[in-house]
Amino acid sequence: MSDENPIENVTIVGSGPAGWTAAIYAARADLEPIVYEGQPKQNPAPVLPGGQLMLTTEVENYPGYPDGVQGPQMMEDFKKQAQRFDTRVVTDDIADVELGEWPFRLTTAKGETVRTWTLIISTGANARWLGLENELRLAQSGGGVSACAVCDGALPMFRNQRLAVVGGGDTAMEEADHLSKFASEVKIIHRRDALRASKVMQDRVLAKSNVEVIWNAVVTDVYGYEKVEGVQLKSTTDGSLSDLECKGLFVAIGHEPNTGFLQDTGIAMDESGYILVEKGFQTYTNIPGVFAAGDVVDTIYRQAVTAAGMGCKAAMDAERWLAAQTLEPTPGEAAGSSH
Amino acid sequence: MSDENPIENVTIVGSGPAGWTAAIYAARADLEPIVYEGQPKQNPAPVLPGGQLMLTTEVENYPGYPDGVQGPQMMEDFKKQAQRFDTRVVTDDIADVELGEWPFRLTTAKGETVRTWTLIISTGANARWLGLENELRLAQSGGGVSACAVCDGALPMFRNQRLAVVGGGDTAMEEADHLSKFASEVKIIHRRDALRASKVMQDRVLAKSNVEVIWNAVVTDVYGYEKVEGVQLKSTTDGSLSDLECKGLFVAIGHEPNTGFLQDTGIAMDESGYILVEKGFQTYTNIPGVFAAGDVVDTIYRQAVTAAGMGCKAAMDAERWLAAQTLEPTPGEAAGSSH
Repeated sequence: MSDENPIENVTIVGSGPAGWTAAIYAARADLEPIVYEGQPKQNPAPVLPGGQLMLTTEVENYPGYPDGVQGPQMMEDFKKQAQRFDTRVVTDDIADVELGEWPFRLTTAKGETVRTWTLIISTGANARWLGLENELRLAQSGGGVSACAVCDGALPMFRNQRLAVVGGGDTAMEEADHLSKFASEVKIIHRRDALRASKVMQDRVLAKSNVEVIWNAVVTDVYGYEKVEGVQLKSTTDGSLSDLECKGLFVAIGHEPNTGFLQDTGIAMDESGYILVEKGFQTYTNIPGVFAAGDVVDTIYRQAVTAAGMGCKAAMDAERWLAAQTLEPTPGEAAGSSH
Repeated sequence: MSDENPIENVTIVGSGPAGWTAAIYAARADLEPIVYEGQPKQNPAPVLPGGQLMLTTEVENYPGYPDGVQGPQMMEDFKKQAQRFDTRVVTDDIADVELGEWPFRLTTAKGETVRTWTLIISTGANARWLGLENELRLAQSGGGVSACAVCDGALPMFRNQRLAVVGGGDTAMEEADHLSKFASEVKIIHRRDALRASKVMQDRVLAKSNVEVIWNAVVTDVYGYEKVEGVQLKSTTDGSLSDLECKGLFVAIGHEPNTGFLQDTGIAMDESGYILVEKGFQTYTNIPGVFAAGDVVDTIYRQAVTAAGMGCKAAMDAERWLAAQTLEPTPGEAAGSSH
């Protein structure tokens, strides 16, 4: 593509609930958005267009599906809804972003150049996994391995069972706390002899009669074919191996926001790489014309419906911001000439 | 009811997208929430359990319904989903709220007393209407009267038609701006000879070639049986009557948050009665244990999906706040004794 191509009104990067919702709203505002949905990759778990929900089986908590829905089906529905209103979808990643001039200039992994008046970043965050083959397989098959206790803890398969949580930070404590309501026992597996979690979180969780920490241990294998049957533990002090029976494994060792492609663009991020939105209630980043929505800004909730809500906000923010500029862009016109 | 009744973990007031989503999340966290869905009333438009969407026909922009859905059907789905996880629903209003002691004490319109450890307020905001009989009838039948251009402007019935917007504030300008993309002409009807909207918004909208203001006029009748055919205008200067043909009427004279029952409770609100959430990204009000979500806090977006996202946040905030208190409440136990 050359600079002779039309300038996009709204370019959306990422194709989870935030991205598709932004597309639905931008499309219905006649802004003719284009979505870069990403290319499939391994990292080490599969990263697919559609995001984290593509690795999720039963979704019970997204409102609008009273009988539940499979994660990939839900993302297909979202995409179909965006396409119904003439959203264009490209199966490519954005590899490089230049925000120093307006319109912004993006370069895709396949080498195409895109110019755009506004940019909505909704590339999400990926759960970190241990990287064990059976862990990843059971996570994708709904076999009892999960990175989200709020999403999955209430499923019948986990009720009154022994569950294992891997991690030692605040998120791991929150997961253990949430699971302790459903499980007969919760075992927190931590590689060191002290938790990273805040004192108050530790005290709260460890006060529960059915929660216990297994110190100085890492998970080196996951047992079970259709469902988790247990894990193999390796001592980090003497290297000895042991087995722990459990019916669920919750991996709570953090998330990685997908913002590597934004290094050196000037977009403000926190120390972990999450994009900072200037007003928490809205989706403006520090760069006018760039908006962010979904798990890429969210270190607290990480739910499909919260991401979708932010995606809607990003599209409305982008529409209104764009309208406040003097030009009236319409796709296919070289609106830049009037700027 | 007397004080001998069990203390609720989570009481949710309001039954729109925010309330039901909060219920889904609280229920799946085993907090056994109770929802006060409200009683039907007239104000002057009907106010129904389920909120504003009960007065909406086709909803095209809530993600998850690729072919669209009727507003009341959508709210039935949400409610069914909350009830699937054992949410209790009471068709009553909360008339009085006492937050000076914890647990909080609520009194319903029918005179029952409820004590609760946490309170989620999601009572929404109602669009203000002109109060004309045919206006309200056509708004509910999907006949071309609407209070939300973002929701309805893209519908085929409004494309390339003359549309009328009533109002003179920033919201009216935003509605007119949005509609100008679809309509052949937009006529803004304003009762005075100057707009309340900010200068920048006025300039932007009035610069559009297909937007015009009809000054010093009010709408005194709406014509059309199945669809809007036009409106009757009355001059505010000389009282003369005239007719304006149009195929859509967008009433943009503001919203009224449903917070009258919270007067003198100490909950911080803005001058219009919207509840202030301390951190914009989260749902904490100024009173610990009280959370707010949905249109009752939102003066910007007012969409079903944004409200649903906030409802999810409120339930997660309430769960974590409650867990951080020393007690571990379980419904049916007099958990207060350990506080």
